[in-house]
Amino acid sequence: MTQPASQLVTIDEVRNDINTFLKDFTQKRIADADAISPSYGELWRSIDALLQAGGKRLRPYMVALGYSATAREFDMLSILPAMAAQELFHQAILIHDDIIDRDDVRHGVLNVTGQYELKYNKYIQGTSERRHFANSAALLAGDLLISSAFQAMQQVCADPNHLRAATNTFADAIFAVSGGELLDTESAFRTDARASAETVAIHKTAHYSFVGPLVMGAQLAGAAEPTISSLKAYGEKLGIAFQMQDDLLGIYGDSGETGKSNSSDIREGKQTHLIEQFHERATSEQAALFAAVFHNATASDEAIDAARELLDQSGARSAVEDDIVVLTQQALQALDGITLDAAVRLAFVDLASRATKRSR
Amino acid sequence: MTQPASQLVTIDEVRNDINTFLKDFTQKRIADADAISPSYGELWRSIDALLQAGGKRLRPYMVALGYSATAREFDMLSILPAMAAQELFHQAILIHDDIIDRDDVRHGVLNVTGQYELKYNKYIQGTSERRHFANSAALLAGDLLISSAFQAMQQVCADPNHLRAATNTFADAIFAVSGGELLDTESAFRTDARASAETVAIHKTAHYSFVGPLVMGAQLAGAAEPTISSLKAYGEKLGIAFQMQDDLLGIYGDSGETGKSNSSDIREGKQTHLIEQFHERATSEQAALFAAVFHNATASDEAIDAARELLDQSGARSAVEDDIVVLTQQALQALDGITLDAAVRLAFVDLASRATKRSR
Repeated sequence: MTQPASQLVTIDEVRNDINTFLKDFTQKRIADADAISPSYGELWRSIDALLQAGGKRLRPYMVALGYSATAREFDMLSILPAMAAQELFHQAILIHDDIIDRDDVRHGVLNVTGQYELKYNKYIQGTSERRHFANSAALLAGDLLISSAFQAMQQVCADPNHLRAATNTFADAIFAVSGGELLDTESAFRTDARASAETVAIHKTAHYSFVGPLVMGAQLAGAAEPTISSLKAYGEKLGIAFQMQDDLLGIYGDSGETGKSNSSDIREGKQTHLIEQFHERATSEQAALFAAVFHNATASDEAIDAARELLDQSGARSAVEDDIVVLTQQALQALDGITLDAAVRLAFVDLASRATKRSR
Repeated sequence: MTQPASQLVTIDEVRNDINTFLKDFTQKRIADADAISPSYGELWRSIDALLQAGGKRLRPYMVALGYSATAREFDMLSILPAMAAQELFHQAILIHDDIIDRDDVRHGVLNVTGQYELKYNKYIQGTSERRHFANSAALLAGDLLISSAFQAMQQVCADPNHLRAATNTFADAIFAVSGGELLDTESAFRTDARASAETVAIHKTAHYSFVGPLVMGAQLAGAAEPTISSLKAYGEKLGIAFQMQDDLLGIYGDSGETGKSNSSDIREGKQTHLIEQFHERATSEQAALFAAVFHNATASDEAIDAARELLDQSGARSAVEDDIVVLTQQALQALDGITLDAAVRLAFVDLASRATKRSR
């Protein structure tokens, strides 16, 4: 089955179209909010600034890719609102995650909390009071974006049954990521009932960022069960591998390239697959040395270097690297059972490569 | 046009059916969350406890009433998920409002933050750290309920175009209430660009709690424009009156009956229509006496009594009472233009009465 070349879009095309869609979407809401009150308009301007600042738009691209796996003709316009819905929700969860993680910056710019801390500076003197009200504005901004994501879905042109299935998939992914986020947050202090790094990765990353967008796209095109199952398996394996690569970058990455610290995961004691692999392999001496540094907020840079070295020496790092290769192979094998145009199949291979061989 | 008696439901019938729907809805999610991790199941149990504890289920009832204004036959089962969606979102915004207002109790039980403060007590010693993580769980709980509300909408049996219109109305109401909430929050400290009490009431209360549910119900039944406009006008006037009654109860209510303090609105300096009316009428002496108590967190009970008396003497209280009567009349007049079965019309009259003559 040969499919027209127009059926494939590049990530750059997706990014352009999504950015335009989001711009139109927020401009309308800025106007509506201004009509209620200028200070409500300000909240939407903050949201707009954040939406335009960042993101690779990988989730929207994956919706398009899932759609390509089934649709005979690719009509991006009809599903663009669903692609945008993924991005709207993603920015919502980032805003809320930043409240949980007490971060001010996202995509290299001030997030909503950060912008509101500046804005409220002249009204509220106490720093913790000001922070509380800045977080309150960010809380509302995230709520608005969750609702906006579902509202965008109303603009999709698709068979109503396909749209319903895709919307349910979207909500299921939100169910998964919220659970993953809770488990991830609790892993810092909850020693009983702690979920494994794999459980967190499956729900916080794989289901939400890979399975959800891919399956949503396929469902919008009316995909049958074998395609859905294959995409689920592909997304789940790839998502776990992506998370493992992310964990490696959090420790061995070049912070100039990744844009984030390569020591904070150790200082904060982040429970990852890498750390689990270390504990399976470390000698008691290695484990004792590591324990003195891990989850120690005041550990020196030298101590962090030594901890990094221990992860290497124990064999944990190369074990994780091997796991990434195996998972990526399993992801690609999951697609063997379905008929895909050669160019579409290549795009899935390329995505797997991007997700697991990245340096940022 | 006579309509069958089965077209009307009572608030008690609605409450029973909604409670059952919500119970089933959360039971399924508790099971799914437990399968991910017991600690995720705990979050859904917290949500379930809160959902079952409270609420008059007025918004679901209004969806049914809006539907009755148009549908020839009332089939509650087909629109029950939309009625439940209103309640799911409402509980979400209450959970998030409680984070903003730093409250622990809702519907007479611990809210999600309150439940998690207890749960995390054995893991986290510092009170502000514990509060932060309890709020983080509550933040996620609210996000889950917003998504759940839209997911419930997928179960509605209605014409796809009607369902799309109703879902957009729902999202518009969320847009309104989030703006109203922001303005209300900022009114405590932001002296420039402060929205009037009426603007806050229209968006935070009238559009969200009255117009949204009524119009959503009507749209699900495929209502034509005159019905939608009439319901909008009815809901907006009634919602403003409801808010005014709420403001009066916040100052003159019996806290045993209302379940909330009748002094905190004065101590917190809540900017209401009543306060605006006072400032229009007060002598400079009355204004000075009032200013010493209003927004004074440490004001004595005697000072609060005196402030309450000043609001009375200035004529502000009776002006607001008059406004409530006028708005209620205007709400009912808005229905004059549409054809309604006598029993349905009576239900609208009864709702207006409930909303504005309540003591709690």
